[in-house]
Amino acid sequence: MMKWWGWGDPQKTFPMHDKPNLWNWLSEILNLTSDQKVTEVVARSQVNMPSPNMNDDFLLEVSSRLEKNQIFTNDDERLLHSYGKSYADLFYARKGIVKRAPDLIIYPKTHEEVEMIMKSAHFHNVCVIPFGGGTNIVGGVDPRDQTITAKGVRTIVSLDMKHMNKVLSVDPKSHTAVIQAGAIGPDLENQLQEQGWSLGHFPDSFEYSTLGGWLATRSAGMQSDAYGKIEDMLVSLKMVAPVGTIVTRTVPTSSAGPDINKWVVGSEGILGVITEATMRIHKLPEIKDYKGFIFPSFEKGVAAIQECLDKNWIPSMIRLQDAGESKLAFNMKSPKTGVEALLQKQIKNFLTLTGYTSPCIMIIGFEGEPKNTKIISQEVLKILKKYRAFSLGKNVGKTWSKDKFNIPYLRDYVMDYGIMVDVAETAATWSKILPVYYKTIEEIKNKFHEENDGYGYVGCHISHTYKTGACLYFTYATKQIPGNEMAQYYSFKKLITDTFLKNGATLTHHHAVGYDHSPWMETEISATGIKALKAVKVSLDPKNICNPNKLLPVEEEMRLGVFGIDAPEMVQQNKARAKKRSGHMGRSTHEQPVE
Amino acid sequence: MMKWWGWGDPQKTFPMHDKPNLWNWLSEILNLTSDQKVTEVVARSQVNMPSPNMNDDFLLEVSSRLEKNQIFTNDDERLLHSYGKSYADLFYARKGIVKRAPDLIIYPKTHEEVEMIMKSAHFHNVCVIPFGGGTNIVGGVDPRDQTITAKGVRTIVSLDMKHMNKVLSVDPKSHTAVIQAGAIGPDLENQLQEQGWSLGHFPDSFEYSTLGGWLATRSAGMQSDAYGKIEDMLVSLKMVAPVGTIVTRTVPTSSAGPDINKWVVGSEGILGVITEATMRIHKLPEIKDYKGFIFPSFEKGVAAIQECLDKNWIPSMIRLQDAGESKLAFNMKSPKTGVEALLQKQIKNFLTLTGYTSPCIMIIGFEGEPKNTKIISQEVLKILKKYRAFSLGKNVGKTWSKDKFNIPYLRDYVMDYGIMVDVAETAATWSKILPVYYKTIEEIKNKFHEENDGYGYVGCHISHTYKTGACLYFTYATKQIPGNEMAQYYSFKKLITDTFLKNGATLTHHHAVGYDHSPWMETEISATGIKALKAVKVSLDPKNICNPNKLLPVEEEMRLGVFGIDAPEMVQQNKARAKKRSGHMGRSTHEQPVE
Repeated sequence: MMKWWGWGDPQKTFPMHDKPNLWNWLSEILNLTSDQKVTEVVARSQVNMPSPNMNDDFLLEVSSRLEKNQIFTNDDERLLHSYGKSYADLFYARKGIVKRAPDLIIYPKTHEEVEMIMKSAHFHNVCVIPFGGGTNIVGGVDPRDQTITAKGVRTIVSLDMKHMNKVLSVDPKSHTAVIQAGAIGPDLENQLQEQGWSLGHFPDSFEYSTLGGWLATRSAGMQSDAYGKIEDMLVSLKMVAPVGTIVTRTVPTSSAGPDINKWVVGSEGILGVITEATMRIHKLPEIKDYKGFIFPSFEKGVAAIQECLDKNWIPSMIRLQDAGESKLAFNMKSPKTGVEALLQKQIKNFLTLTGYTSPCIMIIGFEGEPKNTKIISQEVLKILKKYRAFSLGKNVGKTWSKDKFNIPYLRDYVMDYGIMVDVAETAATWSKILPVYYKTIEEIKNKFHEENDGYGYVGCHISHTYKTGACLYFTYATKQIPGNEMAQYYSFKKLITDTFLKNGATLTHHHAVGYDHSPWMETEISATGIKALKAVKVSLDPKNICNPNKLLPVEEEMRLGVFGIDAPEMVQQNKARAKKRSGHMGRSTHEQPVE
Repeated sequence: MMKWWGWGDPQKTFPMHDKPNLWNWLSEILNLTSDQKVTEVVARSQVNMPSPNMNDDFLLEVSSRLEKNQIFTNDDERLLHSYGKSYADLFYARKGIVKRAPDLIIYPKTHEEVEMIMKSAHFHNVCVIPFGGGTNIVGGVDPRDQTITAKGVRTIVSLDMKHMNKVLSVDPKSHTAVIQAGAIGPDLENQLQEQGWSLGHFPDSFEYSTLGGWLATRSAGMQSDAYGKIEDMLVSLKMVAPVGTIVTRTVPTSSAGPDINKWVVGSEGILGVITEATMRIHKLPEIKDYKGFIFPSFEKGVAAIQECLDKNWIPSMIRLQDAGESKLAFNMKSPKTGVEALLQKQIKNFLTLTGYTSPCIMIIGFEGEPKNTKIISQEVLKILKKYRAFSLGKNVGKTWSKDKFNIPYLRDYVMDYGIMVDVAETAATWSKILPVYYKTIEEIKNKFHEENDGYGYVGCHISHTYKTGACLYFTYATKQIPGNEMAQYYSFKKLITDTFLKNGATLTHHHAVGYDHSPWMETEISATGIKALKAVKVSLDPKNICNPNKLLPVEEEMRLGVFGIDAPEMVQQNKARAKKRSGHMGRSTHEQPVE
């Protein structure tokens, strides 16, 4: 289990020791006046856990059918399942504030157990929130229901899928594997790799997140350029809904009506719980070749990527960092000494003189069968050179690879110093990529000026590319406004998300919607799209027990009344829109009608 | 417009003159005793058109808002829109039997006109069947509604999209184009190719079918190995439903909830009318390289394909014909004379001696940028040789290419001689491909024995390949059983479809569901999947005006009562299943409730 107040292994902190420049550089651009920690995480004993609302009939029923070690009602487990890992989640957790916690945590072991639990939850009107790694950063796993029934406030179950972590079978001829949804990244890869296969899905949260979570949120991994997003690897699945189970066929593709797999993928637990999936797998790559380059500008890097895609030479991974993020990367390197330092300085001078004034790092990866990989790599490198890519060799790739899963720990580190830090990601077509990039950076910097004399960090990288466009991933940080931290956080989120949508980009490329992005869903998929989504929700989950108040836009009264902790800005923005809404989803503070 | 009684250009018939062997060979395997035509198409004047059920208020309303030449109520237009092009459609059309025809045909010119028409149809409770090229072979465009309202039987509009045929814009940076849904293949390709682009979608029906039809049925084109199925090329779309319009965002991908594009794709007009789509386009390939090969067996060909995919060398097209279909192809060739004939004979002898006793033809195509294409082609050819592919050079590819859009005309030709002829296609994972293939061929041949002393034609080809599996496409023909033609036709369809589903294949890979395949939909997507689909149908189309009684399973009373022409076998099969069903979709013979 992760820290209850932060990211990852409770024994681990961000490795600062081998990055002597980093803190000085960050302190300077964030205008930190001392290196004293300004905020501390409260002691576990200081956390004020709300008392549980227990539906005893439900508890009795599931207890009679499961083993003792599958059901927990203690506060430690409840706390661990109260939050995902968004900045807002951590902000509250660190202060020991828990407004709502799940009332019990159940660890199912089989698909049939999930069916039994769901049936019982449906009968007893108990909410079910699927919990994979708990790494969601948009409020996707937080309990957000205060429906009052005859028995009081509804019980909320956090359904922790961690014990359903097996690769059930591999079909080597068809390149498919049947995998349980609770398998976390390393578990799943180890089981596949033992047999010579790989799923090839490595999101930043890989060490903790699960297959079911990836599918429920349309996750993208680092090698998505070669293997696609998780939905592209999906062949078939099982999803347990309150009224029954959706089972799709294990076939390469079909034209038997709309692809029901794609109705389930991205549904974020609001329709039911994904229990297993047949996934396309890949032979374990014989070659893994990662290289670093410097481009004179972000624009040159973008142009190089476009030409590679255009000519159909597709690497497994392309990560292009803008000048802001490249500076962060340079400051994370261990300083060289002696001859190496001299050489590095000379290279730097040479690059500066020849026009690399805002150097941008690209990490590029090639994986696969030797011959194919070699040819693609050769052709790609020719194109990169055309755009003045300066080779940094293999070490940069290795450094990046070593630290890639450590970055989330850095957030915990800087939060100790009173820093607000968040990420925002989107995707846009190639003709809109640079306009969206420029506008977003400009808006964030303007806000730094408004709030903090211009101090703040913002960087961006292109993390996933497609023939038609790419994903832009922004990271930003600035000093918290004491006493107004959540308003500040949400106003950044609103500003950036509005900028994405106004400029033709998508609400989210791979972080999903959860609670935090739901106000923009109507803009994203149109009112009629929302109607379709709600119809499926109501038909599969008539009592609204499945991860309520996620994905679909929520009434503003909900945000104010139940979760008064939300910033008024967010509420204001939804007011006009929410007025038009009515019906099923709006009745969430009252007893739901039983169909 | 196509022939009202058959395929394609009314001026055109299947070119037999350059295939002197074909008819003798076919006559022999089908056991035709004479070459006299046994059935004739009735004269147009003999066609008995049902009288129209006209909702005058609706007609008045749309007439006041459209031009005169956009609305037709004459019998010629009604006849042309009464049927698609399935064997059953043609069987009835040729006899002059039209049980139900659309009552009026409207040709919209803009998205806004479609919105107006749909709104009016919704208000007046009038059915709307989108009509693209009318090439559907599973009953997808046939009027199948007999709902009785206060004003009598409901009016049915066939919404012919042919005038919405423009490429509205091309975004060369993003490799996308906005295209109206009524554009037929050649229209759309010409407009794109003028600007140096191609959609790269060439289904067998290419000359007549439309973008909207492709999207509504999840069509696959001949180059799908390189470019994907139509749904893989889709970036965003507009679909007009009775309660509103779904508009999705033009972004490369997203994780903002389930992909609403994929809710619409494959919906076959039951949710509304697709009016335009933004599609991924490709630079017009500089190289088009098609080659023919002979494999000693189907199995060797399959193994060769699998190794190509395994090593990630992906041609644009692979078409592997089994021995049955290869024989047909050999018999379609013009006979050689002189030295060429001698050479051909020697090659044939050599191949027979060295084990090519059941020779299987493979046509393989490479398209794209010269360097990339050359490398892929070289590597693929190396693999093919490993599996004893014998090169036939480029001519076979050319011959196939020349005749590829003529094959549907052959059906009309053989139907004149009292032959039942149909196609069936599916997809399965690689571990199931050969078992499904063997079992299906066996079942068809057994039926030839039962019905016709074993006389009949059956052949199969692999037409589309994926990393996880492939599409199997069967063609079969045998003598009609006079007086019992439809029972015969449906019993073949039932036999083959049951065989597909029992052996783990899909109901259909690219022909879609329409009316004919709907009894198997529950087996394909599970009862809970049907529930989800129905929920969206009811929410977007509460009066069930959009292409009623397609895609979703229909009550057996409907099949018997309203369309008594259907075979009793089909009805029987659905009886048990249908009993469980109730609710909205079952009330189709009564007035629908108005929300």
